[in-house]
Amino acid sequence: MKAQIFITLKSGVLDPQGKAVHHALGALGFEEAEDVRQGKFIEMELADGTPRERIEQMCEKLLANTVIENYDIRILSGEDAA
Amino acid sequence: MKAQIFITLKSGVLDPQGKAVHHALGALGFEEAEDVRQGKFIEMELADGTPRERIEQMCEKLLANTVIENYDIRILSGEDAA
Repeated sequence: MKAQIFITLKSGVLDPQGKAVHHALGALGFEEAEDVRQGKFIEMELADGTPRERIEQMCEKLLANTVIENYDIRILSGEDAA
Repeated sequence: MKAQIFITLKSGVLDPQGKAVHHALGALGFEEAEDVRQGKFIEMELADGTPRERIEQMCEKLLANTVIENYDIRILSGEDAA
């Protein structure tokens, strides 16, 4: 099975990387970008039947800094993952 | 409108960051993680009516290194974005 994990900075937390991307887009003429936030995207191949709670534990313990980051988990079934 | 952009390394491209996460998960007892790939996740607030092609141009010109990275764009309509 496959899982996708999205890690984003909580709103209110300064995002210098997103600001830099936003600025660079403006400099390239992409004025339609009004705000940019950058996060992490983790794709994981897991043993079949891994419960969602285990993935949450991975996020809490290692993948996300829950003081400043939120995480969102999407589990892809066998068919979706193909 | 809101857009989400997922930037992932092409398969075959070495992903040391993903390998490090995989190794750390194993050391923490998360043996069910069989493979980990790490990418970038960009959330963008855009002027309404921005066509998908513009977002593709942003990816091609700035956000993704298309030699080694793939990108995937998901456009959220006003309702989904709420």
